[in-house]
Amino acid sequence: MVAFLEKLDAAAKKNNSLLCIGLDIDLSKIPTSQASSGSAIFDFNCRIIDETQDLVCAYKPNSAFYEMYGLHGIEALAKTIEYIPKHIPIILDAKRGDIGNSSAAYAKACFDIFKADAVTVNPYMGFDSLEPFLEYKDKGIFILCLTSNPGSNDFQKLKTPTPIFKKVAESIVNWNKYNNCGLVVGATQSQDLKAIREIVKDMPILIPGVGTQGGSLKEAVSFGVNAKGERAIINSSRQIIYAQDPSHEAKKLRDEINKYRWGG
Amino acid sequence: MVAFLEKLDAAAKKNNSLLCIGLDIDLSKIPTSQASSGSAIFDFNCRIIDETQDLVCAYKPNSAFYEMYGLHGIEALAKTIEYIPKHIPIILDAKRGDIGNSSAAYAKACFDIFKADAVTVNPYMGFDSLEPFLEYKDKGIFILCLTSNPGSNDFQKLKTPTPIFKKVAESIVNWNKYNNCGLVVGATQSQDLKAIREIVKDMPILIPGVGTQGGSLKEAVSFGVNAKGERAIINSSRQIIYAQDPSHEAKKLRDEINKYRWGG
Repeated sequence: MVAFLEKLDAAAKKNNSLLCIGLDIDLSKIPTSQASSGSAIFDFNCRIIDETQDLVCAYKPNSAFYEMYGLHGIEALAKTIEYIPKHIPIILDAKRGDIGNSSAAYAKACFDIFKADAVTVNPYMGFDSLEPFLEYKDKGIFILCLTSNPGSNDFQKLKTPTPIFKKVAESIVNWNKYNNCGLVVGATQSQDLKAIREIVKDMPILIPGVGTQGGSLKEAVSFGVNAKGERAIINSSRQIIYAQDPSHEAKKLRDEINKYRWGG
Repeated sequence: MVAFLEKLDAAAKKNNSLLCIGLDIDLSKIPTSQASSGSAIFDFNCRIIDETQDLVCAYKPNSAFYEMYGLHGIEALAKTIEYIPKHIPIILDAKRGDIGNSSAAYAKACFDIFKADAVTVNPYMGFDSLEPFLEYKDKGIFILCLTSNPGSNDFQKLKTPTPIFKKVAESIVNWNKYNNCGLVVGATQSQDLKAIREIVKDMPILIPGVGTQGGSLKEAVSFGVNAKGERAIINSSRQIIYAQDPSHEAKKLRDEINKYRWGG
């Protein structure tokens, strides 16, 4: 099995892209939607994937938007993951985390059942809560570090004297035994992103929050990439998937990201 | 609609019980299991519910153990929730949490789709990540505060100078506008449980980790209850659901809990 990081690097290289498209479905925004229909969700995603698969380094379906449609939604998530071309990594945005045997069950669900290549997880419960995920050596584990929302001030930025999010970043470096760890850092946190990139060296950083949430793209990219201009995964969801022409919008964003990758 | 707290108090009073049974299914432990069958899960749960519904104040299915069986598992979760008698509150143990619109989708999934009465959530992303849950005034929101596992030392106990978990407890008091907040505190943390109960006054505290995880029942109960000997929800899963006689085991534990409720 190809390790997640190899798969990510290969897709980023093939498509010359650090763009990740967030498949955050919203039936109310789909013109042709039939009430809560799983097939409407799947059809919508298929079109996005068909039109953008040569422009992305990853897709990121957010589990929340499928769970909210119940079993039909979750079935559409499974079918969407199956539909995505095998060479493009899929990051299941699920923000899971629980104690040992429960986390093992979540990891099994994400990786063995839903067949995601990577997952987002929450560090609040500490190392042993993430260990069952980390044991999947060929998968990617993106651990929440510093998020883009105002609530990131509530706990993540508290000082111990080091801020919690830096403690998280430092811990992730120690947890990266199998080279399968990554982080989530919001694009609105560009100054801290810089510091985090220094701590985690070449680790992949998933960066949501450009566009709708107001993060600066230039800073997200230039502070997010490693020394080679790689390993930042810039996520955009609504800006692309609800555009009139998703392919055009994705290409525009991919190219803009590339402009900033090597200090442009 | 009856508010969660009323429902919890009424069930606790009717059954004279602070016992919550964790419906943490494990097909490998079910003698008659048919490979990954949703009906085997549902049938197993029905038997537990039939035999213990006069002995509990709540049931707590852990979403992880259903998700790990895919769509059949999740369907069994939905059917299990439907099967539980309406006067007994159901705490969906899902440990969810994400930014605004994603959290709103998770809240919708937990409350409107799966019809849980309460849910467990993760505070790492801060207030606005929990707000969509808190807006469900008649539901219960149990926020992770201090968990029972070793990893609780990694971040929850870091000092700011106040430990993070106390900051979380203090924040929850401020977030309790609709009187629908609760906390999760592991039974292995009995000394801190005492301090947390002082901070949160009459708020319900969900306490997992007695039995298998080694928490002292006596301390969990006596430090966990409020001044009236109420509002502690003592969870037990494997010890009861895989017992030869779940009803006998549940009754024994309920009575032992009651022994400690008023300083016994």
